[in-house]
Amino acid sequence: MNSIFAKRRDRLRERMATKGFDAVLISYAANRYYLSGFELHDVQCNESSGHLVIGADGRDYLITDPRYHEAASSCLPQENVIIYHGGCHAVLADVLRKLGVRIGLEMDVLSRNFVRMLSKKAPLLAFESCDGLTEDLRLFKDATEIEALGKSFALNHNMLHWLENELSPGLPEKAISWKIERYFRENGASELAFPSIVAIDQNAALPHAQPGDRIISESCLILVDVGCRVENYCSDQTRTYWIGKNPEASFSKTLALVREAQEAAIDIMRPGVAFADVYAKAYQVFEREGVASAFTHGLGHGVGLETHERPSLSPRSQGTLKPGMVVTVEPGLYFPTWGGCRWENTVLVEEDGVRIL
Amino acid sequence: MNSIFAKRRDRLRERMATKGFDAVLISYAANRYYLSGFELHDVQCNESSGHLVIGADGRDYLITDPRYHEAASSCLPQENVIIYHGGCHAVLADVLRKLGVRIGLEMDVLSRNFVRMLSKKAPLLAFESCDGLTEDLRLFKDATEIEALGKSFALNHNMLHWLENELSPGLPEKAISWKIERYFRENGASELAFPSIVAIDQNAALPHAQPGDRIISESCLILVDVGCRVENYCSDQTRTYWIGKNPEASFSKTLALVREAQEAAIDIMRPGVAFADVYAKAYQVFEREGVASAFTHGLGHGVGLETHERPSLSPRSQGTLKPGMVVTVEPGLYFPTWGGCRWENTVLVEEDGVRIL
Repeated sequence: MNSIFAKRRDRLRERMATKGFDAVLISYAANRYYLSGFELHDVQCNESSGHLVIGADGRDYLITDPRYHEAASSCLPQENVIIYHGGCHAVLADVLRKLGVRIGLEMDVLSRNFVRMLSKKAPLLAFESCDGLTEDLRLFKDATEIEALGKSFALNHNMLHWLENELSPGLPEKAISWKIERYFRENGASELAFPSIVAIDQNAALPHAQPGDRIISESCLILVDVGCRVENYCSDQTRTYWIGKNPEASFSKTLALVREAQEAAIDIMRPGVAFADVYAKAYQVFEREGVASAFTHGLGHGVGLETHERPSLSPRSQGTLKPGMVVTVEPGLYFPTWGGCRWENTVLVEEDGVRIL
Repeated sequence: MNSIFAKRRDRLRERMATKGFDAVLISYAANRYYLSGFELHDVQCNESSGHLVIGADGRDYLITDPRYHEAASSCLPQENVIIYHGGCHAVLADVLRKLGVRIGLEMDVLSRNFVRMLSKKAPLLAFESCDGLTEDLRLFKDATEIEALGKSFALNHNMLHWLENELSPGLPEKAISWKIERYFRENGASELAFPSIVAIDQNAALPHAQPGDRIISESCLILVDVGCRVENYCSDQTRTYWIGKNPEASFSKTLALVREAQEAAIDIMRPGVAFADVYAKAYQVFEREGVASAFTHGLGHGVGLETHERPSLSPRSQGTLKPGMVVTVEPGLYFPTWGGCRWENTVLVEEDGVRIL
């Protein structure tokens, strides 16, 4: 397994060479894990579990505190693991100085004060942004990642299949959300990929509804947007169901439109198609019916080690689909006084089209 | 409930006045929640759910994206909720400009590029660090917080009481960890406060062990460090148990020392005592027995909306205990080839001593 991470570091080194970096400091947890296998999560958003340094000359280091000494030693040779006590800046500066002068930092995620303190400890180093360098690699899922994503989505499909028979009148959103989490955890997931959305009727009009005390009635709609994590990889799927014998005409019509928009978008997805054009394809279905203003979010986002990754399928997105990208396709229509419908699948872009995960 | 948040904002305004801020931008999720009730968690560490602006003149704003429109509107009046599409920097700059010139930013957590982009959009504003301004308030728990912490720790105690009878030979760490999580979730917790540590024998020598496949034998030690979240407040407790009839002498001796160190520290805790002196008191017990080098971490940390907050009880900590502070007291001894013992309670500092939560 460590050889996969070593290969990824070598691919990063090729990209570092084109930018002239002597070393890069990888601090963002998902990037750090992707390149080393060390700790996918930080302790808290304001408390790092450690930093990865990648040298142009092939010397790589994990720099962490005593709590993670053993974890780091299982990822890199013992002599490449450096432990700090108290502040990390002086130790990082010492390591970076040995590797050269032009140093890449993740300026999109490192705090302004972190960069300032590191600069103070290493005044002769030239720090520049290396944002996107690792994310550019993460855009294209390799075989190991596709296998893990396959397992994560398979479990997600199994859960949704199981769930359909579990939804019965009287159940509150909160209880359904916990049933879903239990299913995931008791069938192979290490955790949820994100807090589950389980939203009944008007709550479904909120794209980020939190499960509450609203209960399934004899006749209602319910939106379920859920994901789990298997072998560190996230899944993300949404379904909107009707509970009761005869769906309301408004429900059937809205859901049909949402699914039509999804199909229209998926139909044109293949390498070379612009992200913005995929969004536009779904949008046009809603526009034709005069409901485009009820489609209030982007069409999709990348999924991998994180639930939200690049690329984004929005009207403002630059770039085109390429083989190996994994993106959600999740059109939705929201009417505050009524409710909402969203339908989400995630696809892997292949040479000649896409495969639904 | 919203009045509590409004009162906290007014207390922050008093502190802003002493620093001469016209407004502060509160972006760190726990601070934002503490002052407004809006979203305790961000979507991901690199994806904000929104920002809170607090004006010296009493005008406060929540600035977020369409997904959180309704959530924000339940925290502040509709006219104080501002929605951005795409980037937030221009919108934030517009709001801040209306409130004055000297603007406080959380430079410890805002990314260097965020600060740079905001500065570009608002070149005439003077941005300065307001780090610690909210954290200084959060140090002292108010009645609402103490009530929530009480519930969170009560559930934690109940779980540990229940757990003692559940630990039997053959169970792997992973399964125990999931039993603990289920108990918490099915008895009132919204989530774990942090990933549970369940560590058998040598695994207990790792302060941040991840539950794995090691199973309880007929005779072993097991360390359990767990926390849940109730009404948004975290609990954090550690116990180390012996499984089997007669504890090993090394276990009994190590655990007795750890508990003695904890008691010695708690005994001297009262307002006015230096954080470093509390640490030293525990350290001295280990030093007396010649095992101080096996105590590899700080003695404690604050607990509240986050599992790890200020203050820190370490040899380097500045400052003294004050009424309203809530801190863990968690001495531990770790011997890589044998295992480890840690014992953790959390205490509330009161006028004349401490109360164990």
